[in-house]
Amino acid sequence: MKVNVGIVGYGNLGKAAEKCVLAKKEFNLVAIFSRRVVSSLCGTLVEPYEKFKDYVGKIDIMLLCGGSKSDLEVQTPEILEYFDCINTFDTHKKLESEFRRLDVIAKNHSTRLIMACGWDPGMFSVIRAYNKAISGDEGVTFWGKGISMGHSDALRRIDGVIDAVQFTVPIKESLMLARRGKSVCGEQMHERQCFVVAEKKDQPRIEREIREIPNYFKGQKVTITFVSQEKLLKLKSKMIHRGEVICEFKTAGGTKAGLNFRAKMDSNPDFTASIVTAYIYAIINLKENNSCGAYTNLDIPTSYLFAGSEKFNLLKTLC
Amino acid sequence: MKVNVGIVGYGNLGKAAEKCVLAKKEFNLVAIFSRRVVSSLCGTLVEPYEKFKDYVGKIDIMLLCGGSKSDLEVQTPEILEYFDCINTFDTHKKLESEFRRLDVIAKNHSTRLIMACGWDPGMFSVIRAYNKAISGDEGVTFWGKGISMGHSDALRRIDGVIDAVQFTVPIKESLMLARRGKSVCGEQMHERQCFVVAEKKDQPRIEREIREIPNYFKGQKVTITFVSQEKLLKLKSKMIHRGEVICEFKTAGGTKAGLNFRAKMDSNPDFTASIVTAYIYAIINLKENNSCGAYTNLDIPTSYLFAGSEKFNLLKTLC
Repeated sequence: MKVNVGIVGYGNLGKAAEKCVLAKKEFNLVAIFSRRVVSSLCGTLVEPYEKFKDYVGKIDIMLLCGGSKSDLEVQTPEILEYFDCINTFDTHKKLESEFRRLDVIAKNHSTRLIMACGWDPGMFSVIRAYNKAISGDEGVTFWGKGISMGHSDALRRIDGVIDAVQFTVPIKESLMLARRGKSVCGEQMHERQCFVVAEKKDQPRIEREIREIPNYFKGQKVTITFVSQEKLLKLKSKMIHRGEVICEFKTAGGTKAGLNFRAKMDSNPDFTASIVTAYIYAIINLKENNSCGAYTNLDIPTSYLFAGSEKFNLLKTLC
Repeated sequence: MKVNVGIVGYGNLGKAAEKCVLAKKEFNLVAIFSRRVVSSLCGTLVEPYEKFKDYVGKIDIMLLCGGSKSDLEVQTPEILEYFDCINTFDTHKKLESEFRRLDVIAKNHSTRLIMACGWDPGMFSVIRAYNKAISGDEGVTFWGKGISMGHSDALRRIDGVIDAVQFTVPIKESLMLARRGKSVCGEQMHERQCFVVAEKKDQPRIEREIREIPNYFKGQKVTITFVSQEKLLKLKSKMIHRGEVICEFKTAGGTKAGLNFRAKMDSNPDFTASIVTAYIYAIINLKENNSCGAYTNLDIPTSYLFAGSEKFNLLKTLC
């Protein structure tokens, strides 16, 4: 029997998730729910957001593809009362409180949620946990070249900034040092390439202000380029990204060892959607095991990413 | 309260495990069990193998550090009747049957076993499972430079071979092709560097026979060097190793993506022991969860590698 899937939100991630679900013959994509009036690129039924409750019994799992800030904090608790859900919530500071709040809702309504289910947080969290368990240290992570939403938002909050985007780029020398087991200082790991749209008269002040924003830019290697709105839209559409987790350590025996994990992608939403879709089977396995509540990638055994009958093949061929 | 640990077997892995357990203040190393009369390098109590039953109630977890072939198949079922165990069983063909056999024993005696718990099988199996779940393909694995026990054994079975060792070395061109997403043929991935001790008169025949062994050497890039017993002992003591799992794929959206995982180590036993020791907490968490039976690394959530109270810190800082 096919697994009935719904998608909530039809931005970049929702569109990528649609393709992922349609590509798997084990899944049946029932509907997309959106607060905007949109039509699906692949001909999937699109319903207004509020209609999700009408699909109880017709949809098994909802993929929540909205943004962390405005969408997921509101939609996840609403939908989780009725459906098993996967989301990509990535507001680091709020992860624990959201986890606890949603765990209660899921347990009260006998549903399941896998949250923060992307590549970072998500898969990279799993890798850093392995690093920490094996070596005592989670290692260092380099991101990019790719857009940082958090840093882009920080730019847009500056008075006079019409629009902006920030590319995070690893500083090559630091990356090479880290790969050779040298410790690298946080501020020297990444270059912050800022592209900003602003009126000419505001530009000198904006540049000064950017360089003073603590945590985001202060003390870091920052380049600032003022561009036209047209150029900025082009830059914003670049969805390439990369990441690397490096853990060089000494064993208890005093010998050297290293673990290195790299991900690269031409499209961040396409890659993230592949991970979200992979966890649909985790929801099915949790359900078969009568487990309810909130989970992160850290809480899911890898064997749960496969249908029951496939586990032993995997063990045999992979081990 | 400290976790009481025992080690069975005092070869390379047992010695490395001793250092790992002693390095962690949460663990108490109670005794080493050996069938040979040995004394511990670090002053740990050494008991004859048969005495393990006297330690029921005094040891929580046994790390089984014998070889897959002669030791683990016999010792694991014997010890698992009385203790929670971790082993590094790596005879690929027998993994499923051993898993099923030991799962029954563990369930009947309310104990837990984590088996095949090393880097490959083990951690690399987890990575390949992620690759498969995300991309549909487990990727390709390169091993080395490092000693292959299986290939070394195959050499030693040849008539007239006094002793031998085989280093597996990735063929650089194939490795580069795979990293760029090109498909590489199994036989062209590794060079087989054979070092053999044999009488002069037998050497031409032995060389011919090596090149004809199916699965191990036939059709592959093989170099054969005849060396003295002294030189061979030196080569055998080289415990460096490496591995790389490469998965280049297209997402459902048609865009390119890649996952790459690398491990390198100056001492295979030291590195493997670090992984085995990391899974002690998994046993504790399984026990707290009232779970019994056999498990592989694929069946253990990453969060189980940490003490209960640490999980939320991890989630917060890692995600």
